[in-house]
Amino acid sequence: MNNRIAERMSRLGTETAFSVSLEARELACKGKKIYPFHLGDMNIRTPKKIIEATKKAMEDGHTGYCPCAGIPELRGALAKEIGKSRGLKLTKDNVSIQTGGKPVIMKFILAFMNPADEVLYPNPGYPIYESQIRFHGGIAKPYGFKMSGKGFSLDMEQIERLITPGTRILIFNNYHNPMGTEANHNEMAKLAKLCVRHDLLVLSDEAYFDITYSGKAKSVASYPGMFNRTVILYTFSKKFAMTGWRLGAAIGPEWMIEQINRLNVNDESCSNHFVQWGALAALKSTKKETKKILDTLRKRRDLACRLLNEIKGVRVFKPNSTFYIFPDVTDAMRNLGFDDVEEFRKFILETTGVSFCTRRHFGTPLDGEDREYIRLAYSGIDLKDIKEGLTKMKQAIENPEMAEEWRKNRK
Amino acid sequence: MNNRIAERMSRLGTETAFSVSLEARELACKGKKIYPFHLGDMNIRTPKKIIEATKKAMEDGHTGYCPCAGIPELRGALAKEIGKSRGLKLTKDNVSIQTGGKPVIMKFILAFMNPADEVLYPNPGYPIYESQIRFHGGIAKPYGFKMSGKGFSLDMEQIERLITPGTRILIFNNYHNPMGTEANHNEMAKLAKLCVRHDLLVLSDEAYFDITYSGKAKSVASYPGMFNRTVILYTFSKKFAMTGWRLGAAIGPEWMIEQINRLNVNDESCSNHFVQWGALAALKSTKKETKKILDTLRKRRDLACRLLNEIKGVRVFKPNSTFYIFPDVTDAMRNLGFDDVEEFRKFILETTGVSFCTRRHFGTPLDGEDREYIRLAYSGIDLKDIKEGLTKMKQAIENPEMAEEWRKNRK
Repeated sequence: MNNRIAERMSRLGTETAFSVSLEARELACKGKKIYPFHLGDMNIRTPKKIIEATKKAMEDGHTGYCPCAGIPELRGALAKEIGKSRGLKLTKDNVSIQTGGKPVIMKFILAFMNPADEVLYPNPGYPIYESQIRFHGGIAKPYGFKMSGKGFSLDMEQIERLITPGTRILIFNNYHNPMGTEANHNEMAKLAKLCVRHDLLVLSDEAYFDITYSGKAKSVASYPGMFNRTVILYTFSKKFAMTGWRLGAAIGPEWMIEQINRLNVNDESCSNHFVQWGALAALKSTKKETKKILDTLRKRRDLACRLLNEIKGVRVFKPNSTFYIFPDVTDAMRNLGFDDVEEFRKFILETTGVSFCTRRHFGTPLDGEDREYIRLAYSGIDLKDIKEGLTKMKQAIENPEMAEEWRKNRK
Repeated sequence: MNNRIAERMSRLGTETAFSVSLEARELACKGKKIYPFHLGDMNIRTPKKIIEATKKAMEDGHTGYCPCAGIPELRGALAKEIGKSRGLKLTKDNVSIQTGGKPVIMKFILAFMNPADEVLYPNPGYPIYESQIRFHGGIAKPYGFKMSGKGFSLDMEQIERLITPGTRILIFNNYHNPMGTEANHNEMAKLAKLCVRHDLLVLSDEAYFDITYSGKAKSVASYPGMFNRTVILYTFSKKFAMTGWRLGAAIGPEWMIEQINRLNVNDESCSNHFVQWGALAALKSTKKETKKILDTLRKRRDLACRLLNEIKGVRVFKPNSTFYIFPDVTDAMRNLGFDDVEEFRKFILETTGVSFCTRRHFGTPLDGEDREYIRLAYSGIDLKDIKEGLTKMKQAIENPEMAEEWRKNRK
């Protein structure tokens, strides 16, 4: 009865990264040790204080429905926190609690994009942007990044060139997955001006705003003329190691948040009640408590970058944010005789157990891209395994006969 | 910037019952004692065993992502439970865990309804059906019920009359909110034949399947030719008093569940991880444990029905399922000089604190409806308050001068 599936489903994308998980799991079942660099899950425990507050909320009977926008206490605390860090005046009415950060993408698109609207989105980028734009009938227009050995930056000229009278929405993901790109003040100011001039609404995906290792993170919502046109995607997942708790928020002007709340009523009714009390405790954490998580991640980043840069034909820039790194493997591939980065990925996975994604998992490469990249997440792997895995990876990359052997066995 | 809201949002409905909550809360703030018959929330505690299993899962570190369809353990257990109670052969691949029962409605519509498809849905009925059909561009075609003092029943002739070549989907809610209607075997068999003959896909909302006070509940999915075209909406909310936990499932043939899972990846990623371990403990509850909840509800139903039937001009049928009752108040309204059931509702709320919904909160009345109904939920109110509230309601209804007074003060 496959002909009974709605036509729009043919336009729905996915996170192809999950197929890498599947491959890794299959190898693990066969007894292979896997070094999990492929997914942005965390192997860091949620702080005890958050767990205790959640337990207490269950015991106190916070097990019935709560308001569709979330409990006022959490919305108020989040308004204060986001107001402070973004320099905005917010109240609880600017906050709509969600079952994670991700649902904000679909709800934003449903509430503010008409069919045939053009939407600019980052590529490489989180694949759900393109999926949701196309799913709901919009025209997905990817913008790329200037890629260089020294890092990555917004290609402002390209973004400006892409804007037409049909462009209505910009999706922006500073502290960027998969590349760790971070715009500087000038770039942010320029981008904000562009949005105001062309009257674009903005989805600012700030999932990694708090995963920055130095300096003060900035939001595009803080720039002149931006607040009233921007919804911030917020998540508790990363800063507090709460990925599986599924709690986030949409934060923006009341006229936009009201629409998101209407969608809450129609979809999940509300987010889990007692988990919201746990999240409230999270927001009351001291800097010391959240710094522990960031310190753990920083050590992993430093080690992984150092080891990768010691591999012949691999070059990686150390990003200041996110828990992803995006090494250029063009020369390594060439040395081993690989044309296809997916082949290269499978070779490394099958011979060493080191599992990662490639640039292809974050969108179709754009015209003019002539380098090959992979993405490693270090949120779910300890220092010991980072060292062990990347040492094996070095051996595989620096011994072309291993690749020869692998190719021979495949046939 | 309201002109920037997507056009589809103008077709999005809501649960107008929430506005009754708001009115009740405002009165409560002014010091009025409220008797909450308006919402289907529960004031019964979630069984301790479920809470303890959830706590253990948090402590055991089940705080990271889980598969988008849910943990295999819960999906397997639910397949077994639903297979047994519905007489179906199910595996975990027939089950997709959701953040409540409600999200199944939107996902079903997105996955299987094309714009301009005609969808049959119950009216009176849960208002989100019509909202989601219209929101995503379908044609919402309401079917009514035969209403009589002895209860309510499906109007099979009307359903058959409504089917056209453009009809693709039937939404069916046996153990029906708001009326407690229950189809008998002959009606179910007839309905199933109709669906097969006209090749309709079916969303079977079985939220109240386990809230039946006598006899064995039946699912339309169990009838010949139905399983492969039906998605069951399942929820943990009612049977286990877990409304605020937000956990449910879509259950159906693999070809349909696969599509629902694709939407999970695009929306919430997965449901809260540790809560799923709590739900697994719930499924392992003994009959004795869940019977307690049902016994509490039965006593409330019996008392409420008895007291309502003692009020002049009020007639109520005692339904065998759900925790709703749907009294006919036509004569009471007439005696008090009310034409509008919403006016009647406000009069009772403001003079007695008894808060309930009316037929209008469950859709626009259909042609030929000549009686007025209200809906009382008894899931969130104790025996003592049922008695106190309905005694006050009796006084208000049987003393026309109170209505006179109320109308005078309003002007």
